[in-house]
Amino acid sequence: MARWEPDARGRLTRAALELYAERGFERTTALQVAERAGVTERTFFRHFADKREVLFAGSTDLQDAVVSAIAAAPPAMSPVETVGTAMESAASILQDRRDYARRRAAVIATNPSLQERELLKLATLAGAAAEALHRRGVADPAAAIAADIGVTVFKIGFERWIGDDSAAGFAACIGEALDELRTLTAGA
Amino acid sequence: MARWEPDARGRLTRAALELYAERGFERTTALQVAERAGVTERTFFRHFADKREVLFAGSTDLQDAVVSAIAAAPPAMSPVETVGTAMESAASILQDRRDYARRRAAVIATNPSLQERELLKLATLAGAAAEALHRRGVADPAAAIAADIGVTVFKIGFERWIGDDSAAGFAACIGEALDELRTLTAGA
Repeated sequence: MARWEPDARGRLTRAALELYAERGFERTTALQVAERAGVTERTFFRHFADKREVLFAGSTDLQDAVVSAIAAAPPAMSPVETVGTAMESAASILQDRRDYARRRAAVIATNPSLQERELLKLATLAGAAAEALHRRGVADPAAAIAADIGVTVFKIGFERWIGDDSAAGFAACIGEALDELRTLTAGA
Repeated sequence: MARWEPDARGRLTRAALELYAERGFERTTALQVAERAGVTERTFFRHFADKREVLFAGSTDLQDAVVSAIAAAPPAMSPVETVGTAMESAASILQDRRDYARRRAAVIATNPSLQERELLKLATLAGAAAEALHRRGVADPAAAIAADIGVTVFKIGFERWIGDDSAAGFAACIGEALDELRTLTAGA
């Protein structure tokens, strides 16, 4: 087998999602994913620690984008506005991948250990957002609350975005969720 | 061994927490917990599915209390107010157990699989709160957002309550977190 495998990582990701959807996450092995992608099992493990991680490889990029956007926000911007805008800005990473995002979410919904991992990734994202706010001089609990609100609007916006083909872009769905959250808390 | 073991469940819970703190969660077995509690391993498994579940046995009670309080709230109360008040009301279950809650949180912080389980329990709590709001006629996304806000103020209030012996009662800490959240979103 050639050592050079063009876009092995992308092919592995697509193959994994296909197989997890077809025969279930539990009943799929890393070897089967590698075979479907046309690469060796060794190549699989050069890219991913295990078959679960294939589904979460993008979360570092998302987190980096959120943290960068928080750091780049105008100094006078409020904590909630800063995190909300950062989530909208980071959403552009996923904007062209709605079909992938939808199929990934469907696989995760079938398996509690995948749900737990997804929740841990979101909690880690909230922690990173809170830290990025600390570096802007925002203290806790404001930083922790604003970061949690950011993850809430990200989740709600994500559900709307993948749930309805006629929905606006991902960033706009997050913006709508943030508006709804403001209305709800103002009315409370 | 006598078949009747007074408060076996409570003794197992206390023994588990002691051992997890002393020698680590990974290095403790169900048998060791049973021995420390003075009961058989079989008794352990009559009460808990595995050594992880010992730490999460209380989450059903908490969830039931939250769901009941949401159902009992005055019909005109707003979704955020309803969930916030329900979290305060449910906090009374834990009010006298600050030392236990603190030690439990310290054990969970040491182990990613326990953190994942804790996050899944909180997500399940949010889902149950959203459903309870649906039964009051609150539609999504308002129900999902209000439920998430409820879990956020529960978490922030919890951190304050276990972090500082001079802090107010658990319910008051949740109320403070809700006030802070309102101020933050109003300013955004």
